[in-house]
This record gives sequence, C-alpha cells and structure tokens, in this order.
Amino acid sequence: MHKYISPKAINRLTLYHAILTDYIEKETEFISSTQIANILRLDQSQVRKDIQLLKSQGKCNVGYSVKELKVSIEKYLGFQKPKDTFIIGAGNLGLALAKYDDFANYGLNILALFDIDPFKIKMTANGKEIFHISKLTNLIERLNIEIIILTVPRKSAQYVADLVSDTGIKYIWNFTPVVLNVPLEIEVWNENLIGNFLQFTLKI
Amino acid sequence: MHKYISPKAINRLTLYHAILTDYIEKETEFISSTQIANILRLDQSQVRKDIQLLKSQGKCNVGYSVKELKVSIEKYLGFQKPKDTFIIGAGNLGLALAKYDDFANYGLNILALFDIDPFKIKMTANGKEIFHISKLTNLIERLNIEIIILTVPRKSAQYVADLVSDTGIKYIWNFTPVVLNVPLEIEVWNENLIGNFLQFTLKI
Repeated sequence: MHKYISPKAINRLTLYHAILTDYIEKETEFISSTQIANILRLDQSQVRKDIQLLKSQGKCNVGYSVKELKVSIEKYLGFQKPKDTFIIGAGNLGLALAKYDDFANYGLNILALFDIDPFKIKMTANGKEIFHISKLTNLIERLNIEIIILTVPRKSAQYVADLVSDTGIKYIWNFTPVVLNVPLEIEVWNENLIGNFLQFTLKI
Repeated sequence: MHKYISPKAINRLTLYHAILTDYIEKETEFISSTQIANILRLDQSQVRKDIQLLKSQGKCNVGYSVKELKVSIEKYLGFQKPKDTFIIGAGNLGLALAKYDDFANYGLNILALFDIDPFKIKMTANGKEIFHISKLTNLIERLNIEIIILTVPRKSAQYVADLVSDTGIKYIWNFTPVVLNVPLEIEVWNENLIGNFLQFTLKI
C-alpha cells in the first residue's frame, strides 16, 4: 500500500468506525460530521477533513450514509486484498482475538488457531478450528500465510518464532512480552500493551 | 507526573525491559548497550541515550546490572506510588490481562475482577478474586479506585460506564470497541488494537 496516514488520523478513523458500527446496530441510516465530533469531543472541521481523505461518495443533505462511510473507512485503512492469518496460542488472549470480528472488516481473516493442549484441539473458537501446533508449518506453506498472530505463553514464544522462520512467513504480530529473534526477512510487530498504557498514564 | 516522553522512547524502553526480564530468567547479571542494540537492531548510541534518561546508577565496566536497569525503567515509566485497579469483565480478554504480571512491575495493581456470570464468581484468576458486578460501585468507593480496565462484551460497555460514572473513577482503560459516553471528569483511554495493527500494515 505504501501510503502514509498519521497514527493520530488512523486512531480517529477507527473511532469513527466504532461509532458507525454502533449506529448500524441501532439501525440509524445517516450521521453528520457534527454528531461524530460531539461524541468524540473533537473539532467538527477535523472530522470533516478526515472524512475527505476517504473520498467517500456517501454524502447527501441529511449527512453521510452510515453503511457507506463505514465501508469507506475499511477500504481506506484495510487490506485492498484480504489476507489470511493464523493465531498461535489458543489461551485466553488468542481466544479473545478470535472473537474480534473487526479484523475481518479490515481484510484480515483469521482462518484457524493452533495450540498444544490436546483438550483444545478440534474445538472451535468463533467458528474457527483449533489445530495441533505440529500442523502449523505445513498449513502455513500450503495456504501461503504471510502473517501470524502470536499469543502463546512467554516461554513458548521463541520456539514458535523458530518453528515458522523458514516457512515464508513475512510478519509476526507479537502479543507476547518477549523480544523475538527472527531472520531479517521476517518483520515483528510488537503489540505493546504496557507501552500504550504508559503513554496514557505519563500524562496524569 | 506530567513529564513528556515520546511514544517511540516509551516503546523502546519497554522493549529493553522485556529483554531484561528475559536475562533475569536466564540468570544473566550484566548487559551492555551493544547487546540491547543488537537484539533490537537499533543504533547503539540510541540505546545509550535512552538509558541516560533513566539516570540509572547500575553502570560499571562489565555493563549495566540487569536487575537495576530493569527497576530503573519501571521507576522512570511507572507510577511513583502504586495504583490499584479492577478489571470489569472476566471473559477471555479480562482473564488474559489478569495474568499479565508486568502491570504490577509498573505500579498498577489489579486487585480483583468483576463479572455477571454466576459460575465465575468466587473463582480466582492469577490469585485475584472474581466478584459479582453488583459489588463494583461499593468497592470502588471503599478502596478509592481511580482506574478501571473495561473488558466486557460490546453490548455491556456503556452500561458499566454509566454504572461507575459517579463513583469517583477518573480513568477508564477501554478495551471494548465502543466509544463510551462518560461525564467530562472521566478520561477514557481507548485501547485500539485494530488501530495499532493498521499502523503496521499500512507500511506494507
């Protein structure tokens, strides 16, 4: 994609998306930039500027079509062509992420989960099967998976990173609190929950 | 606290912290800025500059004391005086966060969890009791809780926000994909997993 959108703009757009999801549940058809601005305590002109980025067609004199605006944000921020992914680690965090339907809206399809616990194998999480870890590398190669989501315990993190290191995987979205050692071809995206938290609290 | 540390510096320091935690497990006593820089593929001078921020005393001619450097980062980034918190929602995400011991290292003590599921009440998660939601407001007030962590399902998010709105709560760390409507006195920190993800993937 190679387009630059500032982290703050991404953050605002995903919050607009959350509001639109809520409006769809309430079966509200139209929304104005003023309404969005009020809910988020933002400046109205900021909201309008962000929405202009999307080149959305949904504007009419009663506001924006909620459904069209939601899809515009997904298209603008998400993958143009959907990508498949696996979650490695079907513990509490892996299961929580498997339930998070917004990933699919932005073009990231969670196909399956992997674990070593025999009690979890063949169970499903939000309709996705849980496989034994021994099937991981074979399935990555057969399905050309480029992204994996890592939610195993700390002690197994590097083991999984080593396991996938020559499967063709390009990206590891790492939810473990471990700094992974991977070949240069693999990019690690560290999901830094404590870092996000400290960014908020340092302002207190 | 009111000090400014850039999000990138916070991110780097928490990654150093992850490496130090790993070294403590491996019972390694000293670490050099070169070692940290190599693991993270960073410039050595950047690592040294970050560590200078900490005004850490642990430097000697064999490198930094792993334990002292870890504590220095916790003191620099974390709460000076520990703060107590509750997790509302003992589903997969709430249970995953309850297991995350790094919060306590940075001064955030998870005291208990709350849920409506009768099967979960009186169970424990990582040694923390799970209470019925009906006890929430009373316990917030009795224990002077200022921060709550919100991990309930989408549909219950606003209900809990309303419930705590006049208990004296100051901050809600919101893991739900809902934009909460709260009184002006309450600050909401939205944990935006999809936003973090999109920041990585837009660079692809």
